[in-house]
Amino acid sequence: MARAVELARLGHGSTSPNPVVGCVVLDAEGRVAGEGFHAYAGGPHAEVVALAQAGERARGGTAYVTLEPCDHTGRTGPCSRALLEAGVARVVVAVPDPNPKAAGGAARLRAHGVAVTVGVLAAQAERVNEEWLTYARLGRAHVTWKFAATLDGRSAAEDGTSQWITSPEARADVHRMRAAADAIMAGIGTVLADDPRLTARPENAGGVVRVPLRVVVDTDGRTPRDARVLDDAAPTLVAVADDAGADLKADLLRLPRRDGRLDLDALLRELAARDVVSVFLEGGPTLAGAFVAQGLVDRVVAYLAPALLGSGPAALGAAGAGTIGDLHRLTFDEISPMGPDVRLIARPVPHPGKEQ
Amino acid sequence: MARAVELARLGHGSTSPNPVVGCVVLDAEGRVAGEGFHAYAGGPHAEVVALAQAGERARGGTAYVTLEPCDHTGRTGPCSRALLEAGVARVVVAVPDPNPKAAGGAARLRAHGVAVTVGVLAAQAERVNEEWLTYARLGRAHVTWKFAATLDGRSAAEDGTSQWITSPEARADVHRMRAAADAIMAGIGTVLADDPRLTARPENAGGVVRVPLRVVVDTDGRTPRDARVLDDAAPTLVAVADDAGADLKADLLRLPRRDGRLDLDALLRELAARDVVSVFLEGGPTLAGAFVAQGLVDRVVAYLAPALLGSGPAALGAAGAGTIGDLHRLTFDEISPMGPDVRLIARPVPHPGKEQ
Ligand SMILES: NC(=O)c1ccc[n+]([C@@H]2O[C@H](COP(=O)([O-])OP(=O)(O)OC[C@H]3O[C@@H](n4cnc5c(N)ncnc54)[C@H](OP(=O)(O)O)[C@@H]3O)[C@@H](O)[C@H]2O)c1
Ligand SMILES: NC(=O)c1ccc[n+]([C@@H]2O[C@H](COP(=O)([O-])OP(=O)(O)OC[C@H]3O[C@@H](n4cnc5c(N)ncnc54)[C@H](OP(=O)(O)O)[C@@H]3O)[C@@H](O)[C@H]2O)c1
Repeated sequence: MARAVELARLGHGSTSPNPVVGCVVLDAEGRVAGEGFHAYAGGPHAEVVALAQAGERARGGTAYVTLEPCDHTGRTGPCSRALLEAGVARVVVAVPDPNPKAAGGAARLRAHGVAVTVGVLAAQAERVNEEWLTYARLGRAHVTWKFAATLDGRSAAEDGTSQWITSPEARADVHRMRAAADAIMAGIGTVLADDPRLTARPENAGGVVRVPLRVVVDTDGRTPRDARVLDDAAPTLVAVADDAGADLKADLLRLPRRDGRLDLDALLRELAARDVVSVFLEGGPTLAGAFVAQGLVDRVVAYLAPALLGSGPAALGAAGAGTIGDLHRLTFDEISPMGPDVRLIARPVPHPGKEQ
Repeated sequence: MARAVELARLGHGSTSPNPVVGCVVLDAEGRVAGEGFHAYAGGPHAEVVALAQAGERARGGTAYVTLEPCDHTGRTGPCSRALLEAGVARVVVAVPDPNPKAAGGAARLRAHGVAVTVGVLAAQAERVNEEWLTYARLGRAHVTWKFAATLDGRSAAEDGTSQWITSPEARADVHRMRAAADAIMAGIGTVLADDPRLTARPENAGGVVRVPLRVVVDTDGRTPRDARVLDDAAPTLVAVADDAGADLKADLLRLPRRDGRLDLDALLRELAARDVVSVFLEGGPTLAGAFVAQGLVDRVVAYLAPALLGSGPAALGAAGAGTIGDLHRLTFDEISPMGPDVRLIARPVPHPGKEQ
């Protein structure tokens, strides 16, 4: 199963709106007969790839799959049937499928006499499929908030200058992360201040070039007509309030207001409805603070430079924590040097009684 | 020499105002005959310990020492003479002694026909002796600035509450670091806000119990008479301006003003004159900002909790960097998990043309 999780990871960032899945098929003697992963939406599922490789050797063997095999006919046939036809005797699953459209694979296999075990290495398999599982379970896009700052938490100097706090290595890593997301998001404050492009070098997966969608969170439609984010390097969606004026010639996503600004939960649901599984939120501090305050950040990626400023804009703006009891607690997943900088990846500590 | 550096480290935190030194003596055949380190001021020097252990086996052998052997008679006799008397044929030194009173050991040994090599594993030996070398070279106390903050650089919530941002593991580590310093320092702002004790569990080194000195940086002598920092748990020095009123019944250190506040360079020189080699600066943000601005922080120890606040006092106050070109660049020395938190140790990048 560890190998299946490794295989699944190979598809990470290019399977949306599908999950990442890895599969290893052993023959009846327990020797590896086939391996596969889901590489891109519309491409063959992991099980199908691994079974094709195994051929007749799959008969009487065991399939290890990181996610419960699907039972519905989408762009490809159901994997449950493929496993039955191949004659495997046993299927070991890490994570059950939370998607009602796809679930039922385990039940169908059992009904046909296949031994099915669920829950093996579930934590690792959850992690590699984190974005898609959030999307499937909560019906909203998964959010990674990235920030770059000095060791004392400043994103720019007092006069607004910030080039470059972090290293080329850290910036290259940001580029990789962007490219793996379905959408790259920024607030109108950042668009007005920095006029960023919000693009990622396109990635080529299975012959399909994926270009992340750009999303501007812009209550009143103030994005300038000549903003770089509206160039033709990638599609862009400008989220505005449903009562905002609209002489922008961009694709608009109209959303209800909440406390005067855009309803961010509605934003993430609308994006999910448009097959956006994962959002890479690049700031600025005001928008990030609002996401954090509403518990809508699923992963934090912080690039900290070995440097001190002592003044200047903070990386994170007001996040609804006025007293220490309201602190937003996380846990560190990864702490790694990134060139001269350090990259810290953290996730929220689940609250008792919280939906997730 | 690597072993000698390891031995030197064993004395770290208890030798002030002496350096930490480690020594390994090999016999004429190259087998380890003796090992030693300097354990506490007034105790025997590393070379003397190692030579005593080696006895006759030192004759014709080699001594590896992390710091150039002293040539003066202080509380103990000169080590250069001890090495000559023991009959070692060769002495390998990592770092030359910058102290004019002690230097000359290598010259005397050479004059008596001993082969002397200097500079072996110098970087490692510098590091382990960092505080003392700063003190000896610059004539001022070495400063470690410690702060604890959230991932976004906040030391407390908006309402001032801060217990506890970091974990018990991180706090225990702070306690160890404090105990290894000669003085623990805080600004009057912190004393007035938090009434801290600024004590460390006393450490017992070679039967000598060391209690770090407490230093309050208090321009106008506003430390309250009943402040905990004035209790009798440890000696305390209150640094005040030479023109400040003085009805405090504490030990006062009178210093010139600089831009209205205390001259921090003068403060560190006065402390060095009182045998304070290393200062552990605990804040707050205003005082730390002033130390950083003046290039008087030699090491930064940051404890970052996996948590976000988005508002509240920043860990570091104004540090004279209004634009990105004035960024205070550091390099990370160590990045280590500390319970659920992360500890980052950094040091300033040497500036071309800077004294150090
Ligand atoms: N170091 C980094 O990683 C990084 C990354 C990005 C940006 N930055 C810096 O951040 C600065 C800009 O940040 P900023 O804080 O001014 O602006 P911002 O966070 O980019 O955008 C904030 C704006 O988003 C809109 N918005 C809509 N719905 C919202 C909601 N529910 N909650 C919060 N905001 C909502 C609001 O526009 P309306 O006011 O029109 O309602 C709000 O003013 C720039 O200086 C940029 O350089 C740094
Ligand atoms: N998280 C942490 O690691 C940590 C650690 C310590 C403190 N804190 C927090 O920090 C807050 C207090 O910090 P603070 O910034 O108000 O005060 P502070 O930094 O503790 O003290 C600043 C004061 O030091 C005096 N001073 C004398 N010479 C100075 C010089 N050359 N440069 C700067 N200051 C000099 C000044 O007193 P005069 O104004 O009288 O001239 C100045 O106001 C508290 O809320 C405390 O909880 C946090």
